Amino acid sequence: MEVSNHAYAVILAGGGGTRLWPKSRQKKPKHLLSLLGKETILQLTYKRMRMIFPPERILIVTHQNHLEEAKHQLPEMKKDNWIVESQAKNTALAIAVAAAYVGHRDPEGVILNVHSDQLITNDEKFVKAAKNALVVAEQTENLVTIAIKPTFAHTGLGYIRVGEQFEDTPAFKARGFKEKPDFSTAQAFLASGQYLWNSGMYSWSVKNLNTAFAEHSPEFKKHIDVLLGVIGTEKEEETVKKIYSSATSEAIDYAVSEKAKNLVVIPGDFGWSDVGDWKVVYDLSKKDGWGNARVSEENTVLIETRNSLVEVGGRMIAVVGLSDIVIVDTPDALLVCHKDRTQDVKKVVEQLKEQKKTELL
Amino acid sequence: MEVSNHAYAVILAGGGGTRLWPKSRQKKPKHLLSLLGKETILQLTYKRMRMIFPPERILIVTHQNHLEEAKHQLPEMKKDNWIVESQAKNTALAIAVAAAYVGHRDPEGVILNVHSDQLITNDEKFVKAAKNALVVAEQTENLVTIAIKPTFAHTGLGYIRVGEQFEDTPAFKARGFKEKPDFSTAQAFLASGQYLWNSGMYSWSVKNLNTAFAEHSPEFKKHIDVLLGVIGTEKEEETVKKIYSSATSEAIDYAVSEKAKNLVVIPGDFGWSDVGDWKVVYDLSKKDGWGNARVSEENTVLIETRNSLVEVGGRMIAVVGLSDIVIVDTPDALLVCHKDRTQDVKKVVEQLKEQKKTELL
Repeated sequence: MEVSNHAYAVILAGGGGTRLWPKSRQKKPKHLLSLLGKETILQLTYKRMRMIFPPERILIVTHQNHLEEAKHQLPEMKKDNWIVESQAKNTALAIAVAAAYVGHRDPEGVILNVHSDQLITNDEKFVKAAKNALVVAEQTENLVTIAIKPTFAHTGLGYIRVGEQFEDTPAFKARGFKEKPDFSTAQAFLASGQYLWNSGMYSWSVKNLNTAFAEHSPEFKKHIDVLLGVIGTEKEEETVKKIYSSATSEAIDYAVSEKAKNLVVIPGDFGWSDVGDWKVVYDLSKKDGWGNARVSEENTVLIETRNSLVEVGGRMIAVVGLSDIVIVDTPDALLVCHKDRTQDVKKVVEQLKEQKKTELL
Repeated sequence: MEVSNHAYAVILAGGGGTRLWPKSRQKKPKHLLSLLGKETILQLTYKRMRMIFPPERILIVTHQNHLEEAKHQLPEMKKDNWIVESQAKNTALAIAVAAAYVGHRDPEGVILNVHSDQLITNDEKFVKAAKNALVVAEQTENLVTIAIKPTFAHTGLGYIRVGEQFEDTPAFKARGFKEKPDFSTAQAFLASGQYLWNSGMYSWSVKNLNTAFAEHSPEFKKHIDVLLGVIGTEKEEETVKKIYSSATSEAIDYAVSEKAKNLVVIPGDFGWSDVGDWKVVYDLSKKDGWGNARVSEENTVLIETRNSLVEVGGRMIAVVGLSDIVIVDTPDALLVCHKDRTQDVKKVVEQLKEQKKTELL
């Protein structure tokens, strides 16, 4: 199957990532960081899209506060393909606005929505799944999501129940969304083989998305219609801002996908991760003979230290007699955390917020 | 008993303290740091001497690299009472040189030698022991040491075996020195009640010290004689430097006390500590309800963290889900160490030395 020239990528580059504090900050969220290797997660995401799309058909939606850095990281991006958010308003609006821009260029447009802050280790398998999703989205009246074959009982993600195969396509009928489960429920999901992780990646034609918005969340259909009337005119910038200040903040799952009867699923098995916390960064990183990750020969001295992550920030870090520890050093803040407690880093950010230490958020 | 006007304090302010890295550095050794409370260990030592001696009878021997900072910390010190070492040459020479300066002022002089890097929590009991030592040193022909009643099986210190009471004085005959013992030997020492920790604090008259040097280490007797001929003349500074460049580097224990037959011991029980490593700093520090020490309300966020020491260095430090950990932050280096492994911090310094990272030593 080949992807048609109507296909566009929309990279949603919003989000924060408080569990990756102190590297992740409001001013420099997760996708702008190089947590693994040299490239940032945004750069890796863009590169992956380039395996399917030419630059002129890759759009990025991002907050105005992160625009400059994102542009700096992606010099190849077409100037007109940045969609700038004046406020963070969740995924439904970002997806609607992007759909209006795609629809303006090509009313037959079909979109692959991906997130800038997810990691994929097997690009080849991803490209295959993404192409399948785009073809089903273009050739049927369905909404398509790419959902992930679970590898463990993850309690930090939503799940999608999968039904029978959809006609003679590589897709399956979606049988309902499940909120983040507790551990035993997650274990049951995993054992059943019927549940996939909800990655938030979607593919749909502008036309089918418009139909779905009209039925389930007409507010967003209205925003698309208004935008189609002003894109390319002098009113464009002002209108986008107005819509951002007035629109409802809603997740696309809630606005559309959970309600739609015509959602189908492409199962994905390509080393996907939401890089949600430092434990995940450790798991995905190369380890030395002691099981230590991210260690800098130049800037660390480890004495009998094992299975730990040491993220240097320019200074010398010495660790003595510790196992399963995460150390993340930055110029103004330091995290020292047990590796099994990295989910609780968000509590640190909450406390800093309470203490009004905004410069550290 | 009252101390006579012949009595002088000599504070030996040498030493390094690699186990207190990264706060303790070659340029700023242990005694110049305020590891407990606001005052530095040198300041606390000087204050303690002032309970016994007037400023004009307190001398300090220190390395030229630390002189400026030491002077800054002790503005009350008499200008002529600093003895400056051009090289670190161990305690025998420092004690000999100081004895020459005291002898020059008062041939009847009697000296209390103390170390600038030891901590004492009960000043009153210390003053009593020190006065006893000075009186025995002045009124008898003996060399006197103040040795510490052990409170646990310390393997990092030497021990002195104690014999019968010396005449009708508060002192006891010394029955031999023991090198740093292994743990079971240290336990046996503790159980026997016959062994005291060697603190390196001594009291003796200039005259008796000279006699002892003459018998056991005549080189140092010679240095004293040479110095007595030049102190107060133009040749003084040059002669001191010459002696420092040529003299043998030897501990006073080896040069004199271990060999002397006339050594007596004053037992001390005044909350003495050599503040040898971060575990000791933790033990001596005030703890909060979670058993955490040195925590700064302004600059730490601790989530379920217990029995730990967090020494902030200006930045925010967040700790999550850890117990018995030592974190010491400085602008150019960070230590994260298990609290039971703080002795091994010296291994970090050794590695840095091998890597020729002299700026961090």
